[in-house]
Amino acid sequence: MWGIELHRQSEVPLKRQIYQVLRDQILNGRLQAGEALPSTRELASELKVSRNTVNEAYEMLIVEGFVLSRQGAPTRVADGVCLEKKTEAGSPAQEKPRLPFLADFRTGQPDLRQFPRYVWKQISQKTMQEMAPSLLGYTGPEGLPRLREEISAWLFRSKGLSVDAEKIFITAGATHALHLIAVLLYQEGKEILVEDPCNAGMLGALASKGYPITPIPVDAWGLQPEYLYGKRACAVYVTPSHQFPLGGILPAGRRAQLIRYARENESYIVEDDYDSEFRYYGNPVAPLYAMDPERVIYVGTFSKVLFPALRIGYVILPDKLHKRWRRLRTFTDVQNPPFEQAALAEFLHTRKFDRHIGRMKKLYGGRRQVLLTTLKEQFKDTWHSWGDAAGLHLAVEFPGMSFDDAFVEASRRHKIRITPVEYHCIQKGKHMDKLLFGYGHLEPDEIYKGILLLKNLLL
Amino acid sequence: MWGIELHRQSEVPLKRQIYQVLRDQILNGRLQAGEALPSTRELASELKVSRNTVNEAYEMLIVEGFVLSRQGAPTRVADGVCLEKKTEAGSPAQEKPRLPFLADFRTGQPDLRQFPRYVWKQISQKTMQEMAPSLLGYTGPEGLPRLREEISAWLFRSKGLSVDAEKIFITAGATHALHLIAVLLYQEGKEILVEDPCNAGMLGALASKGYPITPIPVDAWGLQPEYLYGKRACAVYVTPSHQFPLGGILPAGRRAQLIRYARENESYIVEDDYDSEFRYYGNPVAPLYAMDPERVIYVGTFSKVLFPALRIGYVILPDKLHKRWRRLRTFTDVQNPPFEQAALAEFLHTRKFDRHIGRMKKLYGGRRQVLLTTLKEQFKDTWHSWGDAAGLHLAVEFPGMSFDDAFVEASRRHKIRITPVEYHCIQKGKHMDKLLFGYGHLEPDEIYKGILLLKNLLL
Repeated sequence: MWGIELHRQSEVPLKRQIYQVLRDQILNGRLQAGEALPSTRELASELKVSRNTVNEAYEMLIVEGFVLSRQGAPTRVADGVCLEKKTEAGSPAQEKPRLPFLADFRTGQPDLRQFPRYVWKQISQKTMQEMAPSLLGYTGPEGLPRLREEISAWLFRSKGLSVDAEKIFITAGATHALHLIAVLLYQEGKEILVEDPCNAGMLGALASKGYPITPIPVDAWGLQPEYLYGKRACAVYVTPSHQFPLGGILPAGRRAQLIRYARENESYIVEDDYDSEFRYYGNPVAPLYAMDPERVIYVGTFSKVLFPALRIGYVILPDKLHKRWRRLRTFTDVQNPPFEQAALAEFLHTRKFDRHIGRMKKLYGGRRQVLLTTLKEQFKDTWHSWGDAAGLHLAVEFPGMSFDDAFVEASRRHKIRITPVEYHCIQKGKHMDKLLFGYGHLEPDEIYKGILLLKNLLL
Repeated sequence: MWGIELHRQSEVPLKRQIYQVLRDQILNGRLQAGEALPSTRELASELKVSRNTVNEAYEMLIVEGFVLSRQGAPTRVADGVCLEKKTEAGSPAQEKPRLPFLADFRTGQPDLRQFPRYVWKQISQKTMQEMAPSLLGYTGPEGLPRLREEISAWLFRSKGLSVDAEKIFITAGATHALHLIAVLLYQEGKEILVEDPCNAGMLGALASKGYPITPIPVDAWGLQPEYLYGKRACAVYVTPSHQFPLGGILPAGRRAQLIRYARENESYIVEDDYDSEFRYYGNPVAPLYAMDPERVIYVGTFSKVLFPALRIGYVILPDKLHKRWRRLRTFTDVQNPPFEQAALAEFLHTRKFDRHIGRMKKLYGGRRQVLLTTLKEQFKDTWHSWGDAAGLHLAVEFPGMSFDDAFVEASRRHKIRITPVEYHCIQKGKHMDKLLFGYGHLEPDEIYKGILLLKNLLL
């Protein structure tokens, strides 16, 4: 009777089980408007529960308006609470299971096994312990003041960049930064100019805002500014310290042209500095930002130097965008959580950050060398590399080859994860002969094995 | 000569100081195109540094293209790298310093002093220690599987809601969820219907996406569905478990009408369940989501039950939105960081979460009682409260009063932070006689003192 089967071992309290069955019967029309429920005494004895349990179940139905109760009269189903039954929707699309790759040259992946987790854990504990209770509340869209100051100090000691901490705004990584920047700069009818090739993920972040996107061709030195002219852009997206994916450092002359373009067109330059911390000879490249802090928005990230899951990046913003940024962030996702920010500030403050970068630079530089040597050994003179000795990946040209869809398909079948430069191209067909080798996350023997597998596939 | 003053105590290496001065002189035109730099020997002796230091500075200028170097010839300034000097932009707007309030009845603020930080710290340490290195990389836009499962289990044991973990997507809080939902559901020319009054922050998140927003009036029981008809909406935003700010629980009949409207108009209902965990009598209110999981998007948050800075919320999404959600999140901010997610999963798993809610419910319920008693004592019968006994705030009507801009100004002068309901109204003028008292974060004596101060201001 009443279709109520109680599960006494369940975590769901009995009163709630009773409530749910009755509510479902009301919703699907088996209990109709005006119909009387049994008295609580009757149902309690039927179900062998205390009368109080039934009382509470009825109370829930009353509070939510499914039934009406009047002193001395039976509890009745309310009007207009029945819903016609919905047919079951199709089952969700099955996710493809991930293949285990035998060779994995994906780009943008630091070696997570090398991260000093013990040190990070200690620092996290310390900062969590010392954190003022107020930091558990809302602490503002800019980010923790201490972290902004530590980033400012680090930019000065590592790149000689002198930036007030007040101009630095913490984000949840570089993609998040680009998302907010794109929303902030959007102007009806104006386009955004991007390097071509350009990181496909970043392009996706920009394109999903509805911008018309115009590609500006890139050569071995980066963006070619002569293609900028005549375009009405609200922003230009560039990676001047290490062009992604081809690896060029934008020369000073082109930098000046770019700044001039931005000034003349009142557009902003978005400088994405995604991995310039890792440069294997010489000194860090100076950010474009230094040339015009009113026209350049600098985007920095800790995903590559620490680890992607940290989800902390930052932007350096021209003064006149600060107010709108605060408002936008407040209405987008409010702020970053404070724990990682506090830990990162301490990691920077104690210079453990600098030491980690130094150590990783040595490690990655060695791996890059292994990659170059192995390529030389296996592919002789049939290839040459592009770009500056920096970052976590290498762009390699194999003249005469064409890394098309058939190649991608074949490499997948052979369980080799490798990306042709073409994947990141907007205008297709110009860089068919180039592959990207991410090497930062690979041990030397993994690099060696991967190149052998690739050679088998290609030759 | 050359305007180079070296600061030997500085953290900036000497080579970088030399580089910077020369670069700045090139940029501002004091060193002109074609001009020769001194030989490294000459400059080194001048500055009393090693020749190698100058060499490295020149190397940086060469790599970045500011100067050109040819074997046997002096190093010369490159063409086209000079920038006309920019005039200084105006100084950034001064931030108003925050006033210390004598009475602070702000809403939506849990008592951060009560959060079991020690337990949280222990759990964080444990989960950080046990975390697989792969979780430091990119782990997907859905959130950690373990957290999704724990939330699913908790929804079942606390609200009797049976939801697959695969339908639960972790977000960086409720505002972030609403931001993504608004982008996801946006359809040109369609409006979004919101309760009026409606949380001003949430309204801001919706309005900033460019939606036409249509207010639907709210009475003591919540949204009035008769105002829905004839509107072409892509979404309806509601707080059915505890209307913000007036506090009504939406009755079953209205819920059914709302669902019917959504089905007929192919629109979605966005159910924001921001604080229903705290209900001071009876049982938790069932989510609207249970009535139609294909039409209702449920938004949950841990900001109120734990602490705002945690930045973790979640949505329960209809199957057909999953794919687009993943894509959108990937291009917006990628994912949440894993540490808080892992800690929260453990906090839920060990039921420390349930115990914390139980303890806080008792505490907040007591404070609510103090507020009601004090209001009664100080304001006699000149007021009555609105809504259900739930949440962290109380809406109070003072018939005949009008809490206008002059009141807001006066309260600020008296260092009382209190929000009129009018602040959250879209159509102005209907709720002038109501104030919101946030009490969760206040000790009984703070509540008492606050009410006295308010009385002094009002009478």
